[in-house]
Amino acid sequence: MSRYGRARKVHANTVEGRRAVLEALRAERNIDRLLVADGIEVGPQMQEIFSLAENAGISVEHLQRRELDRQSQTKKSQGVVAVLPDTRYVSVEDLIFEADHRSQAPLIAVLDGIVDPHNLGAIARTMDAAGGHGIIIPERRAAGISPGAIRASAGALMHLPVARVVNIPRTIEYLNTLGLQTVALTADGDTDYTTADLTIPTAIVVGSEEKGVARLTQERCTATISIPMHGQLASLNASVSAGIALYEAVRQRGSN
Amino acid sequence: MSRYGRARKVHANTVEGRRAVLEALRAERNIDRLLVADGIEVGPQMQEIFSLAENAGISVEHLQRRELDRQSQTKKSQGVVAVLPDTRYVSVEDLIFEADHRSQAPLIAVLDGIVDPHNLGAIARTMDAAGGHGIIIPERRAAGISPGAIRASAGALMHLPVARVVNIPRTIEYLNTLGLQTVALTADGDTDYTTADLTIPTAIVVGSEEKGVARLTQERCTATISIPMHGQLASLNASVSAGIALYEAVRQRGSN
Repeated sequence: MSRYGRARKVHANTVEGRRAVLEALRAERNIDRLLVADGIEVGPQMQEIFSLAENAGISVEHLQRRELDRQSQTKKSQGVVAVLPDTRYVSVEDLIFEADHRSQAPLIAVLDGIVDPHNLGAIARTMDAAGGHGIIIPERRAAGISPGAIRASAGALMHLPVARVVNIPRTIEYLNTLGLQTVALTADGDTDYTTADLTIPTAIVVGSEEKGVARLTQERCTATISIPMHGQLASLNASVSAGIALYEAVRQRGSN
Repeated sequence: MSRYGRARKVHANTVEGRRAVLEALRAERNIDRLLVADGIEVGPQMQEIFSLAENAGISVEHLQRRELDRQSQTKKSQGVVAVLPDTRYVSVEDLIFEADHRSQAPLIAVLDGIVDPHNLGAIARTMDAAGGHGIIIPERRAAGISPGAIRASAGALMHLPVARVVNIPRTIEYLNTLGLQTVALTADGDTDYTTADLTIPTAIVVGSEEKGVARLTQERCTATISIPMHGQLASLNASVSAGIALYEAVRQRGSN
């Protein structure tokens, strides 16, 4: 008997229970990863599950039983949950494809730990208005596509491509190999944001509300830029600074 | 017996009760306006109150008793409340003085009905960072200086000059007579925001989240400018668009 559950809190879509997960693996369904409870009894079914997952290159996360139960939609997981890909998100390549498709130099934003759904929403709204190609966010410790973020985006998050990645520094390296400049918005950047050339393929890297762009991220960026501060405070709201930088790119690209 | 109350919800500071209000008027204390309950019995004390208020040019608002009680801090107003000036706010002239004092062309923002404290806070934060001279907000149907707005401003609202006015269209006319250009940020402005000259004395007029700049306000502005939209949506978040326009002024002024 298969048990499918729609996401509410944690996962967009899961397949739960040994038999159901095994059948999903046998049918070569698109599975993002397996969650398995610690201390589960490993009989022939579980052995086949592990074996098929390994052959298919599907990663297996071992969790405490309580944590697994929290992530279960059916509460009858028998200690095994297959997480299906979240269709709200696209791949990093899809963002570049979007730019190619429009014959434009990529203009994307990488959000290095934005936690406030209002900021995610406002940045998505600005990215749409700027005619950019999408946003990259991390899987953990960050705002994702949620009803609150969609509302704050005035609906932009319903169609703007958003990629969700495991590791932001590694994603920056990947973007560099794809030929994009990766420019981190920091308080003490090397270049004023208006003098940096933003007409070439560009990913603007925006830091978290509290900590800015993480050091490990910044080290992998091809440049750092700053918005000048003339007041008593040291920083701008994250979505405002993203907006200022994105619209400087629009201005330079002459697509006004 | 005088009764003074500190503001919680409605007024920063009030004097309440016939005797206390009469004494405040006799002592020529700085009073913003009087609130008087409908149907109040007008004996000699009230007659003197009305007479002194008229002589001092203090406006009198007549309210239903229930509304007056809501606005009373002491709940013993006897139908008469004198509202003292709110010291969190400055006058419009103070903003211009701030610019003169720094030998700069005024750069201010007029918020025509921003209701979200987060937007007010973010715009104040941006105004501070842009080195501008302050913000004008309307008294009614708009976010004011509140703990939430101060928090969203990262503290900028603790020192940035904010003027609160009764009537925004009349304030625009007044700014025009003071020699400022008043440029409304609208979806269908006459000029692209990057081609407008923002180096001269300028008030940027930002509309409400829902309705944009009101028609009566827009009619009094010396110009309308637009931020180009290249996406599927017609507008930006209010604090983001204010940020983009303010930083275009910073860029043009060469104070980067």
